[in-house]
Amino acid sequence: MKKNHISPAVIRRLPRYYRRLTDMQQAGIERISSRSLGESLDLTASQIRQDLSCFGGFGQQGYGYNVESLRAEIAQILGLDRGHTAVIMGAGKLGQALMESFHFTLNGFRLLAAFDVDPNLVGTTIADIPVLHNDQLEQFAAEHPISIGVLTVPKAAAVETADRLVNLGVRGIWNFTTQKLSISDPSVKVEKIHFGDSLLTLSYMISEE
Amino acid sequence: MKKNHISPAVIRRLPRYYRRLTDMQQAGIERISSRSLGESLDLTASQIRQDLSCFGGFGQQGYGYNVESLRAEIAQILGLDRGHTAVIMGAGKLGQALMESFHFTLNGFRLLAAFDVDPNLVGTTIADIPVLHNDQLEQFAAEHPISIGVLTVPKAAAVETADRLVNLGVRGIWNFTTQKLSISDPSVKVEKIHFGDSLLTLSYMISEE
Repeated sequence: MKKNHISPAVIRRLPRYYRRLTDMQQAGIERISSRSLGESLDLTASQIRQDLSCFGGFGQQGYGYNVESLRAEIAQILGLDRGHTAVIMGAGKLGQALMESFHFTLNGFRLLAAFDVDPNLVGTTIADIPVLHNDQLEQFAAEHPISIGVLTVPKAAAVETADRLVNLGVRGIWNFTTQKLSISDPSVKVEKIHFGDSLLTLSYMISEE
Repeated sequence: MKKNHISPAVIRRLPRYYRRLTDMQQAGIERISSRSLGESLDLTASQIRQDLSCFGGFGQQGYGYNVESLRAEIAQILGLDRGHTAVIMGAGKLGQALMESFHFTLNGFRLLAAFDVDPNLVGTTIADIPVLHNDQLEQFAAEHPISIGVLTVPKAAAVETADRLVNLGVRGIWNFTTQKLSISDPSVKVEKIHFGDSLLTLSYMISEE
């Protein structure tokens, strides 16, 4: 599988394709034209064909795409079959919300544990996930390979926590804090959730007239 | 201010410009070249110039941009001066996390109240924001104009809650649920936070090799 030619813009669209194809598969749809897939995603048919050709897509003239094959292909490209693992750093309200409601497994990750310093939380389980003391992270990591750390600590603790995770060899950080991270190891990837940028975009949209 | 020529891609970048310019202003930086601004945002100088020219930017040959003016201009385009208001629908863990930690005011919104059905929450205040009963929404809205509703209810309640907000005349919905919303009124804007898409993108990045 050659993936090195996939542009960042296409990568950003892959999860949307994946979600839509999952919905279609669950609805029993077996094949889909690039036009229909495009309409459901607000993309043009030619955009869809171009995107999917980047990784050797499966469209056939006059037939369209096989939903199950295309979904499986995208799942593999997204790395959903890699057995990735995650830990949550910071079991405050946001960390707890993710533990209780976010479907890590549907997105290719097994959530192993959460870490916090609050004595009221340490030693409990939340949605079957153990909350361990922050100080136990290194020992835990020695016993359980961690692919990514989910950063839901307060902003002031973000840099130090990220550095600890990088030293432990994680391959990615999912950053929910507003702290910009400068990771010295370029092989460690950081993905940031920008609540503020999202709300500002909504502000723009409702301010137009 | 003509804004109707601004493309969605530029709009998506405006919050990033705004954040970076805010950082620069706080750091005492008075002017910035398109090249420096570009480097700090991983964009090319020509991309910056093109983006900012969309809304009649302020760059001067050999001088660059005045940080404060450009920031104020972008703030206005983003609607930060419109006095937007917000209510949180669903004061569970995620709703509480937003109430306690998210800076609504920095993003142009005044958070008025949260609504829930949990008797342990109704009547309390969280980070100085009152939690009211779900049934009080209509009366509250009659007394306090609501610009947007923040949707942090369980997925099963998302459609009904969104419909109620639209009937009350909100202009936007900030959707944190995984429920896709089909709003009949095209003037109501929906902005979705896609946790899953974000994690899948990270999965892709750490799966490459």
